Amino acid sequence: MGENIGAAARVMGNFGLSDLRIVAPRDGWPNPAADTMSAGAFDEAVCAQVFETLEEAIADLSFIAATTARPRGMQKPVLDAAGAVTDISSRGTTNCGVMFGAEKTGLLNEHVVLANAIVTYPVAAGFSSLNLAQAVGVFAHAWAARDADAPAETFGGVDGPAGRDELVGMMTHFEDELERAGFFFPPEKKQVVVNNLRNMFTRADWTAQEVRAFRGAIKALAIGRGKARIGPRGGD
Amino acid sequence: MGENIGAAARVMGNFGLSDLRIVAPRDGWPNPAADTMSAGAFDEAVCAQVFETLEEAIADLSFIAATTARPRGMQKPVLDAAGAVTDISSRGTTNCGVMFGAEKTGLLNEHVVLANAIVTYPVAAGFSSLNLAQAVGVFAHAWAARDADAPAETFGGVDGPAGRDELVGMMTHFEDELERAGFFFPPEKKQVVVNNLRNMFTRADWTAQEVRAFRGAIKALAIGRGKARIGPRGGD
Repeated sequence: MGENIGAAARVMGNFGLSDLRIVAPRDGWPNPAADTMSAGAFDEAVCAQVFETLEEAIADLSFIAATTARPRGMQKPVLDAAGAVTDISSRGTTNCGVMFGAEKTGLLNEHVVLANAIVTYPVAAGFSSLNLAQAVGVFAHAWAARDADAPAETFGGVDGPAGRDELVGMMTHFEDELERAGFFFPPEKKQVVVNNLRNMFTRADWTAQEVRAFRGAIKALAIGRGKARIGPRGGD
Repeated sequence: MGENIGAAARVMGNFGLSDLRIVAPRDGWPNPAADTMSAGAFDEAVCAQVFETLEEAIADLSFIAATTARPRGMQKPVLDAAGAVTDISSRGTTNCGVMFGAEKTGLLNEHVVLANAIVTYPVAAGFSSLNLAQAVGVFAHAWAARDADAPAETFGGVDGPAGRDELVGMMTHFEDELERAGFFFPPEKKQVVVNNLRNMFTRADWTAQEVRAFRGAIKALAIGRGKARIGPRGGD
């Protein structure tokens, strides 16, 4: 189906794969439905070539993994997506390929035997028919994620965590205003309540800017009484 | 788009995820295009529920990851697919969810701030627009492929994290009181300030009891005005 080919090309492009080889497409090539679903992948990211037979399509490859939904009873290594990526990565400049079958039929045994290894995904037993482009997408993502072993940057923001002095200043400010508002009652329980609040704020891991923002909010609540008195809660 | 919802449901079913929550679908619900693309997922594998707002959809969740294509400059943990799966696995019986935005727009900042963490995929810089169902598929596969030996419970306390409804209730309470106190000035900046505050509180990962404690503190500051006026800051 052209739709599947186009969607597969799109997700290949998304994850940095550029060499798409199509064997005997059912509806010929080029295919308008494939173009539509590709979201421009054929122009911008992916080179598609068409072959009449699988043998021609893989002629220049040295390592091939075949994706199959079920075990084939063949004596071949069976890998998951991450395992296939690790294996292919380790082969350096060797030309490697991954084969996907048509969505309804999958790969024929005569195609699978040409592969060095089998790749399977952990699909649910009762609902295992994966869309072809999804099958391509899972491998493509695993490939793009291969160097992500080093933990990525932990936080998206630019601001660092607040210094402990800033944090303590904020907590003290909050506690002072709560004290003025009569929050700590009975007084002998104050320390437990303060401890609980400090634990919450310390665990929150706020940045210096966030600490300042919260101090601004406390201040507004504490000194905004004049304004509040003309608001809907004026009777408080 | 119904097609994307249906394709997302299909790949969820393929990888054993069954709880799909749809917020304000553009073309209503049920949707024939979604049914077609689902390949039977709604009958066989996936339960879909429709909500009018994101807040309702996530009300009973305690941990939420938001998928975004680009960094948002928010102070949140940024995870890859495998990292998100590891994190969610470690939370045991906590209700966890993953948010995906509409394909063209992604998630709005006001939605992302409600998440505990951001999930990104290593997409190609020049061709980064991922199909929505592919984005769901990548996470769903990573979930199905997670290691059986999940790390032990990471929370030391006995109290579980607050439900999202409790957290949103607390944040709304805080914002309402700040509004009364005249904190949001100028008014056109209110949404940005609210987003920053919500991001801070969401990241704080407070328990249900801590959320209640903070609401008590807000209330004290808001209604403690009479007591405050006879205190040392009585002139405020």
